[in-house]
Amino acid sequence: MNYFSSDFKLGILGGGQLGKMLLFDTRKFDIQTYVLDPSDEAPCKIACNHFFQGDLMDFDTVYNFGKKVDVLTFEIELVNLDALLKLEDEGLPVYPSPKTLKLIQNKGIQKDFYTQHNIPTAPYTRFENLQDLKSAINNQQSVIQMPFVWKCTEYGYDGNGVKVVRKATDLDELPNVECIAEAMIPFKNELAVIVCRNPSGEIKTYPVVEMEFHPEANQVEYVICPARIDEEVAKKARAIALNVSQQFNHVGLLAVEMFQTENDEILVNEVAPRPHNSGHYSIEASYTSQFENHLRAILNLPLGNTDSKAAGIMVNLVGSEGYSGQVIYENIEKILEWDGVTPHIYGKKQTRPFRKMGHVTIVNKDVNEARKIAEQVKNTIKVIC
Amino acid sequence: MNYFSSDFKLGILGGGQLGKMLLFDTRKFDIQTYVLDPSDEAPCKIACNHFFQGDLMDFDTVYNFGKKVDVLTFEIELVNLDALLKLEDEGLPVYPSPKTLKLIQNKGIQKDFYTQHNIPTAPYTRFENLQDLKSAINNQQSVIQMPFVWKCTEYGYDGNGVKVVRKATDLDELPNVECIAEAMIPFKNELAVIVCRNPSGEIKTYPVVEMEFHPEANQVEYVICPARIDEEVAKKARAIALNVSQQFNHVGLLAVEMFQTENDEILVNEVAPRPHNSGHYSIEASYTSQFENHLRAILNLPLGNTDSKAAGIMVNLVGSEGYSGQVIYENIEKILEWDGVTPHIYGKKQTRPFRKMGHVTIVNKDVNEARKIAEQVKNTIKVIC
Repeated sequence: MNYFSSDFKLGILGGGQLGKMLLFDTRKFDIQTYVLDPSDEAPCKIACNHFFQGDLMDFDTVYNFGKKVDVLTFEIELVNLDALLKLEDEGLPVYPSPKTLKLIQNKGIQKDFYTQHNIPTAPYTRFENLQDLKSAINNQQSVIQMPFVWKCTEYGYDGNGVKVVRKATDLDELPNVECIAEAMIPFKNELAVIVCRNPSGEIKTYPVVEMEFHPEANQVEYVICPARIDEEVAKKARAIALNVSQQFNHVGLLAVEMFQTENDEILVNEVAPRPHNSGHYSIEASYTSQFENHLRAILNLPLGNTDSKAAGIMVNLVGSEGYSGQVIYENIEKILEWDGVTPHIYGKKQTRPFRKMGHVTIVNKDVNEARKIAEQVKNTIKVIC
Repeated sequence: MNYFSSDFKLGILGGGQLGKMLLFDTRKFDIQTYVLDPSDEAPCKIACNHFFQGDLMDFDTVYNFGKKVDVLTFEIELVNLDALLKLEDEGLPVYPSPKTLKLIQNKGIQKDFYTQHNIPTAPYTRFENLQDLKSAINNQQSVIQMPFVWKCTEYGYDGNGVKVVRKATDLDELPNVECIAEAMIPFKNELAVIVCRNPSGEIKTYPVVEMEFHPEANQVEYVICPARIDEEVAKKARAIALNVSQQFNHVGLLAVEMFQTENDEILVNEVAPRPHNSGHYSIEASYTSQFENHLRAILNLPLGNTDSKAAGIMVNLVGSEGYSGQVIYENIEKILEWDGVTPHIYGKKQTRPFRKMGHVTIVNKDVNEARKIAEQVKNTIKVIC
């Protein structure tokens, strides 16, 4: 199959920042792209070959879009599954497979999958709705004791749909939706490993990264590659991530988020079947970025080298609290003075508190030096309006 | 000045592959771009914000385009100088300055500039036309003895407009245009140094690269960074390049091509006031690519680190002899199997013998290992139809 400067058409569902960064590589390879997104101001609107505005959850919109392309992928999980399943049944290569997506979209089903495949994960109980959870707790039926982590099973992201329940009254603030109650495991580190796999079964893992979260927003604040952990723990984390990808029979990128417990156990938290925030550092730090490897994987091309050229740290640029409106990146000129600092501005014109507006990568031969610069960056640049 | 996700407008004259690669960085920073190019199929047509089709040598077209933007730059020297001069006089920042471009566009004037500023360059004589050259040679008036290098002073590029004259009859094959006759200096290496400088006068040089040319086509075949030369010679080359940029009072990128003579003298061959083929390796190998630094320079932002994360080698992808038509990149899947190999496909749908269709970068910790892989790449991938 000839993809390069040909009539081949790659379809991408979702036109946000992940799609935008993927388009850098489709442009680099001159691969023709079709993008579908609900917003007329989607970051992908330019740099794709053909942009379509439409609802990603609408069956007909997604199905008809899929009929226009030769291979279909997505940069967001919230897409119409039935349309993807029908397109796949009709012979369209859809990567990752909607059958995998179905196992991942619902966190309850995802957790059950780990249990069924002996993949280590925190103990949990599934509940149809808030009422069932409440009565289970009142009658001490749940294996879960307070404090525990409440997660809605669907449509949660970036901390939405995840809450720590410490006392009975916390339950009253939760929405009445399907959910899981997960044991709160004390952990040393939150880690992530990105796995890429192509239809031929070639599979590679990126190095283990270490994540630091923003206390309130529960959004990743720093992603550090390589993670500053023991080699043995890193090996274990990569092996578990590899296994998860193989069990899902996954094609494309799979970002596997994990906890490193106090006694160095690795527990799988959740996965994302697409390019991931924890892999943005790879654009500057890796021999092959996660986006190029996603593209290589879904086109069944040989996978690129996932090793790093240097240490990389990513700082998310999120809207500062108390600012909503036309975005201004205060002190961005200042951070450009420092070695190995590269801002990525996603192109959203309006900022809101904690909205993901961009990220900054810091690359350095020495991870500790990179961490120092990353802290300076975080304390200097401000997303205001 | 707020460039990022703002209403600021950057104008780019020329929409070829250099512009296309520059647009990766304007997209990364979300800087609004206007591009003017004569071709409706220009590689820049997508990924810029506003594309205009028009003649770059036409005064009104260039002038009116310039009136739409806040800062103007170019990715090709063959643009209407008078329009740029008028726009600059009217207060539009045009980088590089048309005053510099005027000194560079004509190779005769460029050579005189080196002589006037004591910049080492090969001996030469200027001629109004071919007739003057012929008679000078017949009357032994020229300081230049055969064999010598004939160069037309204008509109020559990629080997067009450059010929070696070995005997009198060779002269009959030359066009009757303004030209220079340059002494043929035996040299060890062709080197290049890219300098970037911003309006505040901050200035940085990239490492010295070594160039290998295709014997017939006189196009660069490999660009090797770092050049495998003595540290002393490299220092001298960087110092000379720095001086050239300062003498031109240049803003933006200046690619300085040089000869390393048998006795390790450095002679300036010619310069290009823009991102350059000899700097493409920097996209993967440098902390800051030449394109990002060009953007930083013309916007008077701090310049990025020009050091390398790893050794980088670039192989040009030019159309194979005997093939003209709809392009096919034969064996591109094969070269993707090797570590640190990244193809860049410019997006030209039609191939012709020796047409620049793309390039491949090979990045490796070890320059000699990279060189081996580069040779494999060159012998494997073929641009056919």
